[in-house]
Amino acid sequence: MKVGFVGLGNMGQPMARNLRAAGHELAVYNRTRAKAEPLRQQGARVADSPADAARGAEVVFSMLSDDAAVEEAVLGGSGLVAGLEKGALHVSSSTISVALSERLAEAHAKAGQRYVSAPVFGRPEAAEAKQLWVVAAGAKADVERCRPLLEALGRGLSVLGERASSANVVKLSGNFLIASMIEALGESFALARKSGVEPQVFLELFQSVFARSPIFERYAALIAHEQYEPAGFKLKLGLKDVRLVLEAAGAAEVPMPLASLLRDHYLGGVAQGRGDLDWSALGALAAERAGLGKK
Amino acid sequence: MKVGFVGLGNMGQPMARNLRAAGHELAVYNRTRAKAEPLRQQGARVADSPADAARGAEVVFSMLSDDAAVEEAVLGGSGLVAGLEKGALHVSSSTISVALSERLAEAHAKAGQRYVSAPVFGRPEAAEAKQLWVVAAGAKADVERCRPLLEALGRGLSVLGERASSANVVKLSGNFLIASMIEALGESFALARKSGVEPQVFLELFQSVFARSPIFERYAALIAHEQYEPAGFKLKLGLKDVRLVLEAAGAAEVPMPLASLLRDHYLGGVAQGRGDLDWSALGALAAERAGLGKK
Amino acid sequence: MKVGFVGLGNMGQPMARNLRAAGHELAVYNRTRAKAEPLRQQGARVADSPADAARGAEVVFSMLSDDAAVEEAVLGGSGLVAGLEKGALHVSSSTISVALSERLAEAHAKAGQRYVSAPVFGRPEAAEAKQLWVVAAGAKADVERCRPLLEALGRGLSVLGERASSANVVKLSGNFLIASMIEALGESFALARKSGVEPQVFLELFQSVFARSPIFERYAALIAHEQYEPAGFKLKLGLKDVRLVLEAAGAAEVPMPLASLLRDHYLGGVAQGRGDLDWSALGALAAERAGLGKK
Amino acid sequence: MKVGFVGLGNMGQPMARNLRAAGHELAVYNRTRAKAEPLRQQGARVADSPADAARGAEVVFSMLSDDAAVEEAVLGGSGLVAGLEKGALHVSSSTISVALSERLAEAHAKAGQRYVSAPVFGRPEAAEAKQLWVVAAGAKADVERCRPLLEALGRGLSVLGERASSANVVKLSGNFLIASMIEALGESFALARKSGVEPQVFLELFQSVFARSPIFERYAALIAHEQYEPAGFKLKLGLKDVRLVLEAAGAAEVPMPLASLLRDHYLGGVAQGRGDLDWSALGALAAERAGLGKK
Repeated sequence: MKVGFVGLGNMGQPMARNLRAAGHELAVYNRTRAKAEPLRQQGARVADSPADAARGAEVVFSMLSDDAAVEEAVLGGSGLVAGLEKGALHVSSSTISVALSERLAEAHAKAGQRYVSAPVFGRPEAAEAKQLWVVAAGAKADVERCRPLLEALGRGLSVLGERASSANVVKLSGNFLIASMIEALGESFALARKSGVEPQVFLELFQSVFARSPIFERYAALIAHEQYEPAGFKLKLGLKDVRLVLEAAGAAEVPMPLASLLRDHYLGGVAQGRGDLDWSALGALAAERAGLGKK
Repeated sequence: MKVGFVGLGNMGQPMARNLRAAGHELAVYNRTRAKAEPLRQQGARVADSPADAARGAEVVFSMLSDDAAVEEAVLGGSGLVAGLEKGALHVSSSTISVALSERLAEAHAKAGQRYVSAPVFGRPEAAEAKQLWVVAAGAKADVERCRPLLEALGRGLSVLGERASSANVVKLSGNFLIASMIEALGESFALARKSGVEPQVFLELFQSVFARSPIFERYAALIAHEQYEPAGFKLKLGLKDVRLVLEAAGAAEVPMPLASLLRDHYLGGVAQGRGDLDWSALGALAAERAGLGKK
Repeated sequence: MKVGFVGLGNMGQPMARNLRAAGHELAVYNRTRAKAEPLRQQGARVADSPADAARGAEVVFSMLSDDAAVEEAVLGGSGLVAGLEKGALHVSSSTISVALSERLAEAHAKAGQRYVSAPVFGRPEAAEAKQLWVVAAGAKADVERCRPLLEALGRGLSVLGERASSANVVKLSGNFLIASMIEALGESFALARKSGVEPQVFLELFQSVFARSPIFERYAALIAHEQYEPAGFKLKLGLKDVRLVLEAAGAAEVPMPLASLLRDHYLGGVAQGRGDLDWSALGALAAERAGLGKK
Repeated sequence: MKVGFVGLGNMGQPMARNLRAAGHELAVYNRTRAKAEPLRQQGARVADSPADAARGAEVVFSMLSDDAAVEEAVLGGSGLVAGLEKGALHVSSSTISVALSERLAEAHAKAGQRYVSAPVFGRPEAAEAKQLWVVAAGAKADVERCRPLLEALGRGLSVLGERASSANVVKLSGNFLIASMIEALGESFALARKSGVEPQVFLELFQSVFARSPIFERYAALIAHEQYEPAGFKLKLGLKDVRLVLEAAGAAEVPMPLASLLRDHYLGGVAQGRGDLDWSALGALAAERAGLGKK
């Protein structure tokens, strides 16, 4: 396939390389031209602008650092909307806002072009090793059309529905889950250290008990299915344990704002008569706060 | 070994059974006597009180629901402190407060008895299937003495230091990590649903990308080793992504208090000149809030 | 009246002095005896223990630093329960826990003694200047009996119901309101400073617009009467403004966790269809979280 | 003076009327023309667009509902930038974002026009009664020029510095302070109600003790001057009291997220060795989180 690639940073570079390695004809663009050199040596054409990279391409990827960069490269004077042929497809892999993804969808539609949102999970090493996980959303035919390309980037592909921006929601949610776990770990290690537990010991335990166990998976399933009864571990016991955490943290002088947040949510659950549901019913409380009806 | 077991609830029952199955001589006590019947049929002696269960035993386990129950069973009139012989060992497996664990350690020491704190990770099904993970702390000789018993309960054993209550800190931290992940999932699913992403699809993605990947493990290691440079993913990019989450959540009308908390921490990190560290440096911020010095 | 006074710290000292100045016969006790000297010179008897201070007294005040000190002085060996005559009255003015206040009520009742909880609002200077505000709760007859004494302490007295501990709830709530305002001010000043507004200018504005205006009073009335319609200022406009605060704070790199909390609550209100109520309907949301039914 | 006024909602209407009453010549514009009728009857000219309202005016006010409305009315095709004469002055009284205020400043400067940001504190009744408080910022000469007009709107005027958007920061901060107090009151009333204290009683107490006392003013001064020593009430005592609040709230099953936030901040203060400062040192913690150096 004739493929364009815009953005050769530490993610885009190895992604483009993998597309080239899969045998596709490549035109690449990067603001700092020097970064395009390695790909030129592998046979890629070096373009002068995003529009130039789009010249004659069936599919053009963009992989840039933020909303501003994507706006410029897509909607700017010599951007993809200006350069893509009618019917050609833009695959946006950057981590951008849901709002911008929706604006891109509109702009391409107006110009008679196609748009798939396909952000990726994984760090540069994963991109290098073809271990990214791709999440794609857009019109079914469009996703199918670029499927071979998406599969050339990583170890797996999840296809969501027709609304392109839903892939951005999912990507952002994924980063939110990671950051949440980091915060939880940060507070836990602070408590452990102030309680005299060696970080290394706590780490080994985390690795043994949690890291690759199906535990988080199981809770995700309970929330996805809104299956909070019968309780495996009751919400009121969750409250009890979080209270004990906060007591220990108070004694050791460790502020744990995430634990405080959990305490307030569990306490609200109990106050509202939900104490006998499973403690994963935090999911029900989150849904209700958002105005999603009780099941 | 001659072993006592106090508390035959849905955790204690299978734990006691596994000890019996491993060939130990068992005396059991439960407030509601009927629950002791299955174990009687497997050859256990049914005691009239915790103290009676401790009669002649080298080691007595307790597995009860909360601080109040443990206080009564250990420090009460016919409790373990009253019943254990000098030199005999109490293994406390209940999820109790750090403060109570410290009081138990003192009470046993005063009475010339030994004390190991050994809470467990796992639900009743795991107890049944000998799949618990045990975390033990106490004097080295004491832990060694009951090691065969602890190993008969589950799939793994982590031994912490001499301070018994550190096992309680770790157990509570573990439950805090799970509850944190539940909250993060709850908020994510609410956002996904209000953004038109099917919960089942989001679940499958979570299972593919996160559930058994080494991702959380890797972040735990960075925090344990306080290794926030060089950044794999910069803190200021973490801020960017959490902001995008909150923007999307604002547009979809989904309150995400955990995301707000993350935003404030990341923003503080940037304001304090830490934006180029790895985004796992939330761990550094948590440590500093707790008065733990910068490394 | 014959009055005892236990606890001559920087609050108790001027309070006792005011009782003496009002003409009452005084017996005082303080752990560090030297602090009793000024009152001895004004004619007070210096007692050897709380019980000794209670000897022959109709009413004994206690004003101590925390739960532990009060527990010792009231329930301890030579404490007030041991020393008060049947029918004599203990007025507890310390800022203590609701739970301890309830235990004191029980202990005195059991001993045939009377108990009024009467914490005070005001700093040492206010105590000195007879400008405290006293909040009293307990049996009506008991409160009436000590009313002249309570009125000798300050500029005002509020009488709550029969349940003594409700005065403690109110006192703690008052301190919570002050601390909340401090936090809000702290975050505001940080934002103002990082936005180039001189703290002194912001202070003067606060003094002009808020400090003694009826504004907070009016909102308190709306919440007390659960009168959220018609809206003076709509909840959805509250959301808009808090969002603008967070945007400005984001740009200036000022973490404002209280603003984040407000944003999440307002956003939840809008998501749940309450956007057209008055923005004081945060009070309705707080009540519902606590399981108090919708009006 | 020849004055234009754009936006005749429930705030703009009485503001324009007060300008007219002060004897100024008025041209008014409102999207829904019917709302201009009362002012027409008082002698105002009814304009067809913001630009038309600006025709021949020395000063034009705008008072609209949000950023979008202001953007349209100022930067739109027949907006103020298009209509104001060189040297004429736009006074923006709407509650808008800091970012938009800065864009307006730029746009007017580019067009050779003047710009003062002058948001107001007060509800429609206050506007009616000439009781608004106006906060103005902009070039000194410009503020002086419109001073008589600003003084005709309310009971007071605070003048900030040259940077127009600082008035918007201050206005938003003011609304943030009110919303914070509402949240604090909401949580307090929930606690009071669940503790059996009548809302009316709690309200009367609030009115007596807090509402018009100098208490909040005093704390604002401590924070403005960063004067956290000597402590009037120590931060560690603040921690104690907030802990007691949370204990009472836990027992009564009342989630109090703002109290949790305070607890974490106070606990961090103590952990970092600041326990002996005044409890208003929450202000110092907020400043440090924002990267403002320790004094």
